[in-house]
Amino acid sequence: MTSAGELQHKGSGQVMALKTDSWTQVSCPCCHIDQVEPLVLIQLAPKVKPATKKWIISRIEAPETDGGAQLLAHPGEDSNGDVILVAAPRCTLLRITEDLGLCKPYQDGSMAAFSYHDRSSFKNVDDMQTFLTAAERQYVVKYELDSLNVEKDQHIPGMPLSKGLLLARESIFQKLKKMGVVLSVFPLHAQRSLDDLAKSWYSKKQLWGQPLDSINAYFGGTVAFYFSFLDFYTWALVLPAFLGLVLTFVPGGGPVGRAEEEQKEEDEGPSVRGLMVQAVFSMLWSTVVMELWKRRSSALSYHWGTLHLTERFAEPRPGYHGTMGYSPITGRLEPLFPEWKRKLRIGLVSVPVVGLFLGMVVLGIAGFYSGEAFVQDLHANHDSMLTAGLLYVPSLVHILCVNVLGTVYSKVALLLTEWENHREESAFQNHHTAKALLFTFFNYFAILFHIAFFKQDLPLLRKRLSSLLIVTQLINQCTEVLVPLLVDRFFSGSDKKLHKDDPEVDHVRAQTSLPPFPGLFSEYIELLVQYGYLSLFSCVYPLTAIFLLINNVTEIRTDAFKICRLFQKPFSAPVASMGVWQAAFEILGFVSVVSNCWLLLLSPRVKQFCQEGGFSSRNALLFAILIEHILILIKMILSIVIPDEPDWIRKKRDEIELHSLQALSQQKL
Amino acid sequence: MTSAGELQHKGSGQVMALKTDSWTQVSCPCCHIDQVEPLVLIQLAPKVKPATKKWIISRIEAPETDGGAQLLAHPGEDSNGDVILVAAPRCTLLRITEDLGLCKPYQDGSMAAFSYHDRSSFKNVDDMQTFLTAAERQYVVKYELDSLNVEKDQHIPGMPLSKGLLLARESIFQKLKKMGVVLSVFPLHAQRSLDDLAKSWYSKKQLWGQPLDSINAYFGGTVAFYFSFLDFYTWALVLPAFLGLVLTFVPGGGPVGRAEEEQKEEDEGPSVRGLMVQAVFSMLWSTVVMELWKRRSSALSYHWGTLHLTERFAEPRPGYHGTMGYSPITGRLEPLFPEWKRKLRIGLVSVPVVGLFLGMVVLGIAGFYSGEAFVQDLHANHDSMLTAGLLYVPSLVHILCVNVLGTVYSKVALLLTEWENHREESAFQNHHTAKALLFTFFNYFAILFHIAFFKQDLPLLRKRLSSLLIVTQLINQCTEVLVPLLVDRFFSGSDKKLHKDDPEVDHVRAQTSLPPFPGLFSEYIELLVQYGYLSLFSCVYPLTAIFLLINNVTEIRTDAFKICRLFQKPFSAPVASMGVWQAAFEILGFVSVVSNCWLLLLSPRVKQFCQEGGFSSRNALLFAILIEHILILIKMILSIVIPDEPDWIRKKRDEIELHSLQALSQQKL
Repeated sequence: MTSAGELQHKGSGQVMALKTDSWTQVSCPCCHIDQVEPLVLIQLAPKVKPATKKWIISRIEAPETDGGAQLLAHPGEDSNGDVILVAAPRCTLLRITEDLGLCKPYQDGSMAAFSYHDRSSFKNVDDMQTFLTAAERQYVVKYELDSLNVEKDQHIPGMPLSKGLLLARESIFQKLKKMGVVLSVFPLHAQRSLDDLAKSWYSKKQLWGQPLDSINAYFGGTVAFYFSFLDFYTWALVLPAFLGLVLTFVPGGGPVGRAEEEQKEEDEGPSVRGLMVQAVFSMLWSTVVMELWKRRSSALSYHWGTLHLTERFAEPRPGYHGTMGYSPITGRLEPLFPEWKRKLRIGLVSVPVVGLFLGMVVLGIAGFYSGEAFVQDLHANHDSMLTAGLLYVPSLVHILCVNVLGTVYSKVALLLTEWENHREESAFQNHHTAKALLFTFFNYFAILFHIAFFKQDLPLLRKRLSSLLIVTQLINQCTEVLVPLLVDRFFSGSDKKLHKDDPEVDHVRAQTSLPPFPGLFSEYIELLVQYGYLSLFSCVYPLTAIFLLINNVTEIRTDAFKICRLFQKPFSAPVASMGVWQAAFEILGFVSVVSNCWLLLLSPRVKQFCQEGGFSSRNALLFAILIEHILILIKMILSIVIPDEPDWIRKKRDEIELHSLQALSQQKL
Repeated sequence: MTSAGELQHKGSGQVMALKTDSWTQVSCPCCHIDQVEPLVLIQLAPKVKPATKKWIISRIEAPETDGGAQLLAHPGEDSNGDVILVAAPRCTLLRITEDLGLCKPYQDGSMAAFSYHDRSSFKNVDDMQTFLTAAERQYVVKYELDSLNVEKDQHIPGMPLSKGLLLARESIFQKLKKMGVVLSVFPLHAQRSLDDLAKSWYSKKQLWGQPLDSINAYFGGTVAFYFSFLDFYTWALVLPAFLGLVLTFVPGGGPVGRAEEEQKEEDEGPSVRGLMVQAVFSMLWSTVVMELWKRRSSALSYHWGTLHLTERFAEPRPGYHGTMGYSPITGRLEPLFPEWKRKLRIGLVSVPVVGLFLGMVVLGIAGFYSGEAFVQDLHANHDSMLTAGLLYVPSLVHILCVNVLGTVYSKVALLLTEWENHREESAFQNHHTAKALLFTFFNYFAILFHIAFFKQDLPLLRKRLSSLLIVTQLINQCTEVLVPLLVDRFFSGSDKKLHKDDPEVDHVRAQTSLPPFPGLFSEYIELLVQYGYLSLFSCVYPLTAIFLLINNVTEIRTDAFKICRLFQKPFSAPVASMGVWQAAFEILGFVSVVSNCWLLLLSPRVKQFCQEGGFSSRNALLFAILIEHILILIKMILSIVIPDEPDWIRKKRDEIELHSLQALSQQKL
């Protein structure tokens, strides 16, 4: 707390700013400003020597021509402290904005890929706080830090000789993390912006609508796309929820199913026609919703300037390795790794290994069932306390197995994806997510599918499904609402104990005590699993949509609260879509046709209906297959006929392409 | 024959050249050359007045700044003659090459989108005969002629006042054709190039291999892609043909089906396992072949310089209409027609009308069957000469109906597609082809599907299929080999009657007597229908592939002969793929899974096998469905896993995209 004098609030703006005195100096004259906005915090291990810290700072502030990151660094309290604050000068921000291929508002109001050469034609290019979003500024810093490396093998100053060797082109920050010098690198929360965002997001008493643009500005694309989808999906649930209500509570299911009115409606679920309507509706609904979402997604991507990301021309992700060479495309010196090798690794190793784990899940279920049958048999023959206790053993063993398997798998999936050596971060994320998703999905649905397709026991499926829906929702709501609330009240972000008048550095330092944000995987998977319940088994339990609707409305608030208050701010790369999640939702839509047709065929109501109508079981089956094929065909046609992008976006794309064609033809290659 | 002195052979080269004397003069000094190559012939009606001819020539030769085509025109024998020869100066050729987005060899050896600004960096840019292919030079002329129009309403000189009015922006040549002034516009054969091509194509005694590059150079992309596909597909047939032979003639089907060896193999076709092997093989084979073809297709497209066509930025196709306005993308004045209107027209009119016709085909079949049943009934009851004659009536009526329906439909399809008002020629072609294809396909396959799925009469299907294969092939071979040969021997291109020493203009004029090339639709549909027989019903008749293989080997020669000798040369737009045909082949691949699984299930062998194995018919059905779903899944995964483009093409694309990005960022928009 020695340098309180350096720290100062910028009274009017949102920006917590530190005076430039103790920041490293910018190397270009154009970027000289009075106030520097700290963007990213690097937390060092407590025992790191000042020489090492000094060297790190020197790499951060060195100009790009000397292989540095051309950023600004602030040593925190003093050169012995365990934090480094990093900020970015205007030049670096603009340069990386161009490298990333971000679009920004052009002077004519449309979005155009930012060009440094033509920077004066873009709006607000002089004010970095307005020109780039907070998330973008922070991502630029991460991008620069990640791509820091040295030209030749070098020893890191202040480190023991045995382990401080940095190889040529090795990512400096990866090495520092591996050696335990850097504990974490995370973007800083801007408390005022955050308060404003929180107020308009979850504090207000509104049920619908989220400030998506502000979320994108503050948290970045990945988070904003998640909440946009959550929002969109919640709206989309209104229709099936309404239909579910009608089918369940209106006698005879409204205009449909009047023929079955005489039959008892109690425990058997809705009527045959009601079932059919529900199934066909939900199958077509899922396609239309996903197609409309794609359109919405591309519109959001346009507004957020990520329609033309050029990730594959930018620096490779830090873990990427290969023989050094000049890229045939960009001509830059970078690690090269042939595509066929990656494909071989995926095809010959990753796919079989993932398959092995999925096989083990199935084996686990088989083991569980045979174990259960065995102990029930035992209990029936020798009825005793011991055997009664044994009844719980298979479940416990199974739960244990599933958990162990899950933990091992998540490590294996990460290692495999690292080993596949993807050049782009998005490719890495997609492959990793796909692996994790496949496993989780199997874990959740294998038992339900087993009940539906092999046991063919529909009442059991209904029970399982409703208990899963209610139990998991209760658990989720508890963990997601209560725990955060308790944490907030009793432990609370240590920031709260600080006064507003305390020096900025203390506020910043307080964020190091927050846990890092765990990522959106579990949030997405929760959505996906719910969507699975809804679409795969909808005709068994028509009230699913209502439950999901209620769940989602609270989910939005709790997720928002969590990300705002309980964690360090996450880095967020600019993205153009939900990535692999979109595909997952779509695939689920097609699987749902198969499962719904099958479930309809199995449902006792339909069976009875067939018998009364004089259909043989073979003919009923043939009819179900026919319907299935027709529905899949309709879904495919729908997904082709509804364009993935609104016309105006396609026009914008054409416009941009024409511009670049014209530019190319003006120029000698 | 007045001006024989002007006409002269260029001794060494391929180019039939006319001295520049009686050509119109080029407006730019750079294009002045001694010899002009006539590219396109415009045939006028005999009664056209010299004033009209003169006006047409003036429009053709006027520089682009005056709204002309900036081409060279030659009035044939004299200004009263009924032909105009058109050639193109270097400037126009290069300008349109850039407009079309054609790629040409750059000085570093790779293909790059041609840029007029940077023309000196392209290879052979000084010699138009080498730089552009004959087909490209001729297409440039067509492109320029098609886009000829006038700024204001104008009366065509020499025409009666009542009908000679040309509206502003109306396509001149469309109007002239409508009024009967221009009878046809076609590209000229270059006899020596054609002779060389013919020699290496079908005259040599080679069975395999075609000079694809020369075909592309001479006839252009559409023709070259057809023959490339035919070539590729013929090679691909070797494997299924071999398998078919093994399954049919090796006792017990080789290693498979040994269990059934004792059973009679006579009329029942191959064994159960043989059937399975055949069916599964052909289903996976079709996907792999189509995926590999896509890769080959994109490689061809790269070599032929059509990877980056910019059709949507070039002039709209001549029939395109709409309210005049400035294109939001190119900023050019052109007709604008909103996309949603086109979609509405397609969705609300075209689709229902096409559906109506397909319904009529089905109705026709139903009528045929009920008629047949009726007359057979009649004949059985009152056996007489009259009723015996009546037995043929349903077939005859059906054939008549099919033909009338086909003729009406082809007109309707063309009108509908015109009315849908597509901006690009390729979109027009694709929509037109898709309509025609759907109908033809229904016509060919509806009866077979009816027999397979409703009558479930496999022996009948086998008979129909083999007779169709043999009869249609015999008919095709006759019409395609014999008729052309006879025509060639007895009527013959009137060119043969000319001596080599006769003036060039006579040789050129002789081509007007040839019929116009009818297009590749019937050739493609023949391939597709054969492919349909092979993939849809392969497990019924394993020798299909052998028949097709033999057929294709001769097909290549006869098609080549036809296109070289019997017709006027067709115009051929540069294209990047087979267009809608590729999709048709792929869709057929997926339909084939459904049909094969079903046929397997129906086959008496499999039924017997199931009964012996103790499967209930319901379980056999379930098993077939499972297999079907798995196969479709495998096919989908295969088609996703096998990339549509080889890696090196993807890299080239990236390279080009990066270049244009860099160019864009260098330039102010």
